[in-house]
Amino acid sequence: MDYRLFYWDVPFRGNFPRLLMLEAALDFEESDPTILYTQKSLQIDGPGMAPPYLYDIALRKYLNQMPAIMMYLGHKHHLMPKDEYDKALAYKITLDCNDVLMEITRYNGSKMWTKKEWKEFRYERFSNWLQIFESISTNGIDKSSGYTFGGKITVADIALTALLGTIKHCLPELSEDIKEHAPKVSKLVERIEKRERIKQYLKKQRKKSGLVYCSGRIESSIREMIATQ
Amino acid sequence: MDYRLFYWDVPFRGNFPRLLMLEAALDFEESDPTILYTQKSLQIDGPGMAPPYLYDIALRKYLNQMPAIMMYLGHKHHLMPKDEYDKALAYKITLDCNDVLMEITRYNGSKMWTKKEWKEFRYERFSNWLQIFESISTNGIDKSSGYTFGGKITVADIALTALLGTIKHCLPELSEDIKEHAPKVSKLVERIEKRERIKQYLKKQRKKSGLVYCSGRIESSIREMIATQ
Repeated sequence: MDYRLFYWDVPFRGNFPRLLMLEAALDFEESDPTILYTQKSLQIDGPGMAPPYLYDIALRKYLNQMPAIMMYLGHKHHLMPKDEYDKALAYKITLDCNDVLMEITRYNGSKMWTKKEWKEFRYERFSNWLQIFESISTNGIDKSSGYTFGGKITVADIALTALLGTIKHCLPELSEDIKEHAPKVSKLVERIEKRERIKQYLKKQRKKSGLVYCSGRIESSIREMIATQ
Repeated sequence: MDYRLFYWDVPFRGNFPRLLMLEAALDFEESDPTILYTQKSLQIDGPGMAPPYLYDIALRKYLNQMPAIMMYLGHKHHLMPKDEYDKALAYKITLDCNDVLMEITRYNGSKMWTKKEWKEFRYERFSNWLQIFESISTNGIDKSSGYTFGGKITVADIALTALLGTIKHCLPELSEDIKEHAPKVSKLVERIEKRERIKQYLKKQRKKSGLVYCSGRIESSIREMIATQ
């Protein structure tokens, strides 16, 4: 076993490290994240505010903050672009993805959606995010193949898949938004989801969890907005 | 000239790349960030949602997302720790700092403070963040010298200074909280602020801008909470 992931049994922010570890053919297991919340985490090597936490079994150290976990695993398991600016851009794309997670859940559920604010999010912010992703990724992706940074899969492709593949599956009404504003990225995500280990994992996860996205009141609020729009 | 920084004339999130560039003795100038907002940024190489943007003059490319800028500059100008896990921990500390900025401004001013929520933030979340920083940094910092990762200054020390040095100066009422929950980090911040180029810059900035922190309605809301607590 290489790693232990502390996260809830939902795709949301957890599928970022999961898909990366699957792509890199790493062995990982999962544990209940509540044992590492804030004060409790002060006892470990690498304390933090909230899950996901990655535990590096060989190193016996913890790391939280999803984008930091992606960079740690990406460097260690050769999923970073080579060029220094591209590395920073891969990191920036992961941060952008994390911002979309924050926005769609109104800062991890700190408030619920109103119809007016949901409309602004869906037709302004979310489409802007998609256009940003499409604009950055068009450098590497030709019509039917390639990755954000040319011929090599990196954390950027995995982060975009963990964000947008999950939204496409769990909130299928938003698939059209993705296809409209980020058509090449949308196809990239489909290709990444077909990679063997990722495909097998997603099949199992989706069979088990159905459409569950982030769970909780905020997921109900998102679904209510989509249903009554 | 090495870089151009697009950010408002306030310390808040801008002092992170500023202090790093000062420490690395880089030449940089500043520009109005509003020309790069969202839709407008789609025309540039490296589009994003919001400032700060760093323009690499030699490369003719842009990069936004503060933690990505810190990592880009940190790698390029030798301000990263050597060990791979420590590198990831330096990313994580920068992300933690960015989360504190989000929390103290209630997600970049998306809502204003209430007294009850401010109290929870100040006496629970903020002290937890400080304890996390103190717990991570105690490895490298002895009583009166050293850095988060031993004998070498890194982006982690600069990020902590840009976060906590700015709060100490602009919101001096919170200095006691910092000293109480993160005494070693508090001294680290004082030492970093005394480094020659950083010292000269902060002297000028503070003379010019006084106590201005992030500006806007949310800064008034923070000050109202502190004054009437």
